[in-house]
Amino acid sequence: MEQRATIITLGVKNLDVATKFYQEQFGWKLMAISNESISFFQLNGFLLSLYPTEKLAEDAKVSHKGNGFKGFTLAYNTRSKEEVDSLFEDLKRKGVSIVKQPEEVIWGGYSGYIADSDDNLWEIAFNPFLPVDE
Amino acid sequence: MEQRATIITLGVKNLDVATKFYQEQFGWKLMAISNESISFFQLNGFLLSLYPTEKLAEDAKVSHKGNGFKGFTLAYNTRSKEEVDSLFEDLKRKGVSIVKQPEEVIWGGYSGYIADSDDNLWEIAFNPFLPVDE
Repeated sequence: MEQRATIITLGVKNLDVATKFYQEQFGWKLMAISNESISFFQLNGFLLSLYPTEKLAEDAKVSHKGNGFKGFTLAYNTRSKEEVDSLFEDLKRKGVSIVKQPEEVIWGGYSGYIADSDDNLWEIAFNPFLPVDE
Repeated sequence: MEQRATIITLGVKNLDVATKFYQEQFGWKLMAISNESISFFQLNGFLLSLYPTEKLAEDAKVSHKGNGFKGFTLAYNTRSKEEVDSLFEDLKRKGVSIVKQPEEVIWGGYSGYIADSDDNLWEIAFNPFLPVDE
């Protein structure tokens, strides 16, 4: 297998609500291939897709039942500590759920966590050892 | 926020087992910045990281308790239906858990699902509407 992934799909309770979260709170643009059944966002080299949780489980032929920690996180790295703080201020002002205020972390970075409309965790981090070069 | 993500981190029960899964079953190469606490794989434009579930939850200051469907899937798209079949044969021979045998799906593609060593679901799919161009 080549060392790549094409899509990460997040199961969502309500597709409209979740799509609006990424459009309005993150300011992201929906891809034209999206429709009323599924939303796609073109990220850096791969797609983020949003799809109703029950249908996602059904597609894989597994039970959709689950609760508690989902066992994964997404991370958005910034170019500075200040950028982490300003993103948190902006997201807080927009009503986004702050899970952990940014703080210095043991591995030498500065990071906090927010949740999307389905409690998917996004870490927003400055990592001096992993520069964002775009 | 720019339309990008830096890392997806999968919480794992046992870091060695999970790391070996991606190295041996997927044939992926570990990044040099990995250490005994965390594993990184450089994918197309972003990183896949593996980190013990309890520590991942602790980093976000949430409970690590959770069970059942994790509410997300990863997808690896191929260039043909035949490539889906040959990947499934290869993964099955290596002892990888097959969650759903590949079949024609309602959206016009051909796909199946496998699970990694922590039951994270990977869809392996041919999608004629979303060509893999690398």
